[in-house]
Amino acid sequence: MNVTVRGQTRHHRTVAFDPASNAVRLIEQRLLPHQFQIVATRDYSETARAITDMVVRGAGAIGATAAYGLAQGARAFRGGDLKKFSRHVATVYHTLATARPTAVDPVNALNTVRAAMRAGETVAEQQALALAAAEEFAHEDVQHCAAIGRHGAKLIRNGMRVLTHCNAGWLGFVDIGSATAPLYAAQAQGRKFHVYCDETRPRSQGATLTAWELAQQKISHQIIADNAAGHLMQRGEIDLVIVGSDRTLGRTGEVANKIGTYTKAVLAARHQIPFYVAIPLSTIDWKLKRGFDIPIEDRHAEEVLGAWGVTRSGKREFIRVANPTSGARNPGFDVTPPELITGIITPAGIFKPGELSRRRCELGAAT
Amino acid sequence: MNVTVRGQTRHHRTVAFDPASNAVRLIEQRLLPHQFQIVATRDYSETARAITDMVVRGAGAIGATAAYGLAQGARAFRGGDLKKFSRHVATVYHTLATARPTAVDPVNALNTVRAAMRAGETVAEQQALALAAAEEFAHEDVQHCAAIGRHGAKLIRNGMRVLTHCNAGWLGFVDIGSATAPLYAAQAQGRKFHVYCDETRPRSQGATLTAWELAQQKISHQIIADNAAGHLMQRGEIDLVIVGSDRTLGRTGEVANKIGTYTKAVLAARHQIPFYVAIPLSTIDWKLKRGFDIPIEDRHAEEVLGAWGVTRSGKREFIRVANPTSGARNPGFDVTPPELITGIITPAGIFKPGELSRRRCELGAAT
Repeated sequence: MNVTVRGQTRHHRTVAFDPASNAVRLIEQRLLPHQFQIVATRDYSETARAITDMVVRGAGAIGATAAYGLAQGARAFRGGDLKKFSRHVATVYHTLATARPTAVDPVNALNTVRAAMRAGETVAEQQALALAAAEEFAHEDVQHCAAIGRHGAKLIRNGMRVLTHCNAGWLGFVDIGSATAPLYAAQAQGRKFHVYCDETRPRSQGATLTAWELAQQKISHQIIADNAAGHLMQRGEIDLVIVGSDRTLGRTGEVANKIGTYTKAVLAARHQIPFYVAIPLSTIDWKLKRGFDIPIEDRHAEEVLGAWGVTRSGKREFIRVANPTSGARNPGFDVTPPELITGIITPAGIFKPGELSRRRCELGAAT
Repeated sequence: MNVTVRGQTRHHRTVAFDPASNAVRLIEQRLLPHQFQIVATRDYSETARAITDMVVRGAGAIGATAAYGLAQGARAFRGGDLKKFSRHVATVYHTLATARPTAVDPVNALNTVRAAMRAGETVAEQQALALAAAEEFAHEDVQHCAAIGRHGAKLIRNGMRVLTHCNAGWLGFVDIGSATAPLYAAQAQGRKFHVYCDETRPRSQGATLTAWELAQQKISHQIIADNAAGHLMQRGEIDLVIVGSDRTLGRTGEVANKIGTYTKAVLAARHQIPFYVAIPLSTIDWKLKRGFDIPIEDRHAEEVLGAWGVTRSGKREFIRVANPTSGARNPGFDVTPPELITGIITPAGIFKPGELSRRRCELGAAT
């Protein structure tokens, strides 16, 4: 999407690849919203670390980053020994696949790229195929998000107040985003609406990233504490909820997403407010049989005990908010059951969660 | 309760009065948990400002502060003209009564002190009666919290995991607290349990005050993001919820408390986890007919957009977390309906929310 820095508006993708320097170029999301900066990772380990450290985050963006990372790792190999090359690629694959354990996107992306590479008979051919497949993966991500926007825009009527949680915006993808795609599409169609962004503690991606995105696109919005949505729903001030998903179980319709998503779904159900999940096809997991088995990252306690921001003197700082002698528990994700979900907005259309398994082919499970 | 500062343990009340200097002595709660400091307000306007600015907060503590503030204001009057004195007292009353619009405690406390003053026939007598009534008010607050502890302790069994929201601890009262009273009483009876403290954004009173209290009393606890409780409940890791209340409607059993309380009640009901509200009698409002009419403070957006804490170099700072060009909405309280509340723990026993109105006399509505 477009970013305006010092009056200059330019189009940016969240993740891109520079073949000349064999570098993955990423928007450094931990500096947002206070500073807009592009970083380049020089090798696949740096790329994996960027995923782990959340320089880049969000389903589609880490998928594309992993895909580019595999191409980057493959292209760094010198020589023509296919056996050695395969072992090297396996190491690259493993490093990238384990960078974020809860997310399924990097693994899907890596599998896509690795499958494409098999058509090559030489190291050089496989290297070229890896890059082409990664570029294709990124291109499809953009196309899928655009399709989510087309389908989801129909849900947004003039005057609506829409709640979002975390950031499933264009920063979470290569471009456009999933949960934000319907907003951007509805705006393009001239509709007026208001968005409440859940702050989304402990990492505050709603207050930092989603709010930054919406401000860049001049969409009317306000940030609320994660505690406030229940009150606003009770008073009839929220009409629609759209969130993203890190992993959706194709068999059950269960949705793993940022911690707090489940709470918003419970509240929406109580107030009969439509609760939609926007997902790219790559985040559908067709294997797992129950949401309880999705591994939930227990992240650093430090995230809960303090916050990152900018001081009055303009310095980026971590502050300790909590009592210094107390610890924290920090589950990163939760699982929302299908009965709380009104619909799942996919690039192929909007489906009930229970419909996913019947539409397996349509939803690309074969690939 | 006891506070340990540099190895020295001393008993402190949250609010106290120094007759010699005619000053209200308050624990400066905005500096906690990083610094323990007592401040003294020199006149009733400073006392009212301390309530508005949340130097002191919590139902019982602001009640006692208002009571002492009225005595302080009355005692500052010079001369014997009863008519002028009455006008002066009316101004003091009004200033203190409007310091926090949502809270009913200051008004109840002020009415109690003003009623006691009427028995005095001279300015000096009324001044003395004001102070005696304020001291009695504070003493009763402590006795009520102790009684809440006795009743509530029965709910806490060995090995339980208890969720709290915000701070309805001894810092919110003159001593002991309401929601924390059962914890302190159960601990005194030798029971072992674990407490999850909701961070309670935007002001983080759970992470700062409740966690500090529990750490001082050596009760096992962890802070969680407000987003995490739903997940923990879903996984069967929370057995009991105890929260406080800023205002409870005696007629309906509705509970106004810190923003986010309603959300926790909705989640607890879904998971059939007992949800208790601990209240001192002074917070019961017998007049209002429906919770919807409770005025909900819309607090400063700034609270949602950033956080107070201590930097790595030890400096107390406000940091801006959110996107600098975004605004926020910040309702301070929400209202929980009676059907979500398992029981209300009062100094007179534990009641169903619907029982309150039938037990009006027992609950001191006559006073």
